[in-house]
Amino acid sequence: MTPTAPEQTRIALDALAKPPGSLGRLEELAIWLSAAQRRSPPTVAQPRVIVFAGDHGVARARGVSPYPPEVTAAMVRTFAAGRAAVAVLSRRAGASLEVVDVGVAVPVEVTPVDGVSVVSAKIAAGTADLSAGPAMTADQCAAALAVGRAAVARAHTRGADLLCLGEMGIGNTTPASAISARLLGRRAVELVGPGTGLDAAGVRHKAAVVQEALDRVGPTDPLGVLADLGGLELAALVGAMLEAEVRDLPVLLDGFIVSASALVAVQLEPAVRRVLFPATRSAEPGHGLVLDGLDLPPPLLDFGLRLGEASAATTALPLAQAAADLVAGMATLDEVLSGRI
Amino acid sequence: MTPTAPEQTRIALDALAKPPGSLGRLEELAIWLSAAQRRSPPTVAQPRVIVFAGDHGVARARGVSPYPPEVTAAMVRTFAAGRAAVAVLSRRAGASLEVVDVGVAVPVEVTPVDGVSVVSAKIAAGTADLSAGPAMTADQCAAALAVGRAAVARAHTRGADLLCLGEMGIGNTTPASAISARLLGRRAVELVGPGTGLDAAGVRHKAAVVQEALDRVGPTDPLGVLADLGGLELAALVGAMLEAEVRDLPVLLDGFIVSASALVAVQLEPAVRRVLFPATRSAEPGHGLVLDGLDLPPPLLDFGLRLGEASAATTALPLAQAAADLVAGMATLDEVLSGRI
Repeated sequence: MTPTAPEQTRIALDALAKPPGSLGRLEELAIWLSAAQRRSPPTVAQPRVIVFAGDHGVARARGVSPYPPEVTAAMVRTFAAGRAAVAVLSRRAGASLEVVDVGVAVPVEVTPVDGVSVVSAKIAAGTADLSAGPAMTADQCAAALAVGRAAVARAHTRGADLLCLGEMGIGNTTPASAISARLLGRRAVELVGPGTGLDAAGVRHKAAVVQEALDRVGPTDPLGVLADLGGLELAALVGAMLEAEVRDLPVLLDGFIVSASALVAVQLEPAVRRVLFPATRSAEPGHGLVLDGLDLPPPLLDFGLRLGEASAATTALPLAQAAADLVAGMATLDEVLSGRI
Repeated sequence: MTPTAPEQTRIALDALAKPPGSLGRLEELAIWLSAAQRRSPPTVAQPRVIVFAGDHGVARARGVSPYPPEVTAAMVRTFAAGRAAVAVLSRRAGASLEVVDVGVAVPVEVTPVDGVSVVSAKIAAGTADLSAGPAMTADQCAAALAVGRAAVARAHTRGADLLCLGEMGIGNTTPASAISARLLGRRAVELVGPGTGLDAAGVRHKAAVVQEALDRVGPTDPLGVLADLGGLELAALVGAMLEAEVRDLPVLLDGFIVSASALVAVQLEPAVRRVLFPATRSAEPGHGLVLDGLDLPPPLLDFGLRLGEASAATTALPLAQAAADLVAGMATLDEVLSGRI
């Protein structure tokens, strides 16, 4: 029987000029890449970072973030200028960066620098206040899913072989907490944290807002929960992950918000787990529960990152590049011992 | 009072377009780089990987490794050919790689590929069997220290601004275990592990060999211990770290053997701690005790790496590059909110 791609990569790793298993989690990453790409050796030659941006009615209505909603648009301009964390990290790692406006509240007009593209795919000028009623209509949610799918299709067509997915949206730890709590059967207080930097009183207020949303009668199926409690950029992330699975594209997951979206994607289509790897254990306290719910390997980095923007996934990207390079570039032990090197 | 370089970097980080502290350990790395380089912003523009290679009498005499001593020379050839793990990782990270033969048992003649240099600085054709008597004479040890210092001076002169230090030497977890046990006041069994892959009986034998060495009457001062129980490449590593401190060059530490050398360097000159950062928590069980003894920040990666060669330090190198880039490349929050982006 022909070995599968990950089996072939395991065999190749064991033949390299090193004690078996001595590259530890880099070997695990190489095997995961092969499983996601369904080929051996795997490649990380054209990584692509995609950041979906959207605003949230709950941020404007309920003050769940220390930052004003205008920051979402300002940060899209900063991505375009190549001056946001993820832009700096993408440049260093040789990754292209695409920012997709799927729901920023104000018009965003930018001329991006080389290596960055900005796509306008606005479904709405932000969501409705999820504490008072559904964040999105079913149609809006479906359209945002399609935006995410299209971004991944675009990346794939242009040759991308790995994705780092991220988000920008002031207030979006609130929908992420709400979705996760509903899908995991938890109370708001178990998942809500400081986000970008709320104090203790702010966290209590935010938990109360999320609990109000959870206490509304709402759907319990993953797609229904996503529309009811989610956000446009979260829905786009779900679509992106579903499409990544179809196209055999490995995805490095960013922090809390991306992981909450992954929870929806995995419940919609369990096969998606094959292409997902968590880059980070976020400083946001709810992330641990979400990671447990995803049942993926342990995150690569435990750096206390809590910025979002795909910054953690892009920080971890060189580890995946290293893993792929090692499989392709190292000599075998046989070559070394036979003097053929 | 003028803030110090690390204080300036802390201030710069807090002004960037992100919640304060949200880049977690990347901020810690940036501040460490500034402290080591004594400047702000820090740079990681010309990283240099230096691997010292040497052989060990104890490996030939007592069979403490599953690999024959000939593998040391064969691996130097593999480094030169750009096909060892550290060569692949250096290339990916844009680092130059220098391999220094400080004590390989057989002559090594190689023509390295671009990006790799091989320096012949052989003090002896390996050490004497440390279980029976001193591994090195005081003169040999001093000469190996000087080889390490010279390699760092060479790197610095050519513009290097960060070092990844590593080693190659079949059997060298044995001297690393012996040095660490002596300096930490431990028994051999507390530090000896499988190295490149001994089975349980092999580990017991190796622990007995190390304990024999410890039971000999020997010096207890760091330099005396290094000559008595060490290795030529370990002594070169100690010299390299001492010189890195003098030249304000940050050093990413590799695994168990490099950390054992760091223990000697830090006991000789406590100021060296300023320039050292542990890249990895090695799979070698004694590494935890050595890291505790060094009293440095927690390692960056916990990947179960156990290859040596500076492969862990070079795997972590992109994290230091990212940290430096972020300080220099990100917009400030003031720029973003004032619309100047």
